[in-house]
Amino acid sequence: MNNRYKITFAYDGTKFAGFQKQPKQRTVEGTLTHIVNKMAQKSGRQIAIYGSGRTDAGVHALGQVAHFDFPYELSEESMLKGLNSMCPLDIEILKVQRVNDDFHARYDVTGKKYLYRLDLGQFTDPFKRNYTAHWRFPVDFGRIKLAIQDYVGTHDFSSFVASGAKDGSRVRTVFSVKANWDKDANEIQLEFYGDGFMYNQIRIMVGVLMEIGQGKRPIHDIKRLIKVRDRNEARLTMPANGLYLKRVFYPGDDPKHSVRKHHLDDQN
Amino acid sequence: MNNRYKITFAYDGTKFAGFQKQPKQRTVEGTLTHIVNKMAQKSGRQIAIYGSGRTDAGVHALGQVAHFDFPYELSEESMLKGLNSMCPLDIEILKVQRVNDDFHARYDVTGKKYLYRLDLGQFTDPFKRNYTAHWRFPVDFGRIKLAIQDYVGTHDFSSFVASGAKDGSRVRTVFSVKANWDKDANEIQLEFYGDGFMYNQIRIMVGVLMEIGQGKRPIHDIKRLIKVRDRNEARLTMPANGLYLKRVFYPGDDPKHSVRKHHLDDQN
Repeated sequence: MNNRYKITFAYDGTKFAGFQKQPKQRTVEGTLTHIVNKMAQKSGRQIAIYGSGRTDAGVHALGQVAHFDFPYELSEESMLKGLNSMCPLDIEILKVQRVNDDFHARYDVTGKKYLYRLDLGQFTDPFKRNYTAHWRFPVDFGRIKLAIQDYVGTHDFSSFVASGAKDGSRVRTVFSVKANWDKDANEIQLEFYGDGFMYNQIRIMVGVLMEIGQGKRPIHDIKRLIKVRDRNEARLTMPANGLYLKRVFYPGDDPKHSVRKHHLDDQN
Repeated sequence: MNNRYKITFAYDGTKFAGFQKQPKQRTVEGTLTHIVNKMAQKSGRQIAIYGSGRTDAGVHALGQVAHFDFPYELSEESMLKGLNSMCPLDIEILKVQRVNDDFHARYDVTGKKYLYRLDLGQFTDPFKRNYTAHWRFPVDFGRIKLAIQDYVGTHDFSSFVASGAKDGSRVRTVFSVKANWDKDANEIQLEFYGDGFMYNQIRIMVGVLMEIGQGKRPIHDIKRLIKVRDRNEARLTMPANGLYLKRVFYPGDDPKHSVRKHHLDDQN
């Protein structure tokens, strides 16, 4: 008999070599796997963690999701406290839910939301160095506001995918893109919501947007990039430290977009 | 002939063994001294940095001040860019001013303002672990608001000084204390402005305030603590990572408090 738990958690990606377990590296998956197995030590069972998808080294999460099967029946509250008491300070379990045995953190994904933060200060802000990209060039926010809409919709994003990405279709649907200029924080914040993102896709999309804001590209260059399907055209990959996995969506979370699309997600 | 520069700078204290230069330790003063001497290498002169005062390991600064004499005449803008180009990412020079030869970053201090941040979340927030103290107990903010006023004024703060502090008068003047409950950030922020603070004084003052908020001390216990002049009564020293040196004041900065009081400042 299984007790399946869905956990929602945040992490500061600074000191992790990404989400995915790797030998001899400190990863989020590796850390959580170790903790859960420690908690279930006496059962003699090996427990695997299934994340919603990977994130790259340095990328943060505000709401990553994973599931696992636990040999003992623990209340959600006990599991929450138990996990947090063992987590290092750069991971926090935000929520624990008992779920049916057919729930799968990866296969059931219907969408993902990412946030990208850019600090506009002249020099690097010591308190933001790990939490924002630093954009030190002039930027016309009005141009960015106009350009973001060109990402929305179902497109072939071949121009926006890292060369190392998996084979397969490069067609993805972006449900929405929002741009916010937070003047108090002196930051531009970009939010991407879609059915799945490929390796480095968001970091490349942000690079193009910023070059449009800088005036180095025409306002509607994204339309052209989508057509040409050529990675060399998009140039810049923005740094990992500005990127946050904000939320993972599952059936029912957003009635407008409730189709399982896990096969489309290879992002980080 | 001297070219004296006053610099205002921020630092993330997480990875520094405090402000003050120490052999074989990474300190803010040591780092800046190294940079300034590197910039003036060809002059063959040894340049010393004079800070407004020390901060402890882990304590941050939003507006620390120092001065130094430079063998070459550089514009404020060039000095700002030159220093920042050599600073590690956890130090940022915010402002450079040419000042008269009689300006002294330490002797001319008329007051200091500190900020203390407490995160109220149930578990440690991974993004705040180095930037706030974590207060996980219930707290009645109304009690804190009432209690803070008891610190204001000229008092003997013997109950609020670390055992390792220098000898001398423990009389200090607190000009103001402000308490803010930032509900969005789920934080309590406390701001202390005074003519000088002794070693650990603010971290001890915050500990007392939080115990008042928690109901473990009567609302006006600060009045009693001031009277008894006994360090053992104050107990808690709050962690360094919630503390920020926010601003250093010099004659003219605040017309209401313009008397030089550097000899009163031994804080961090």
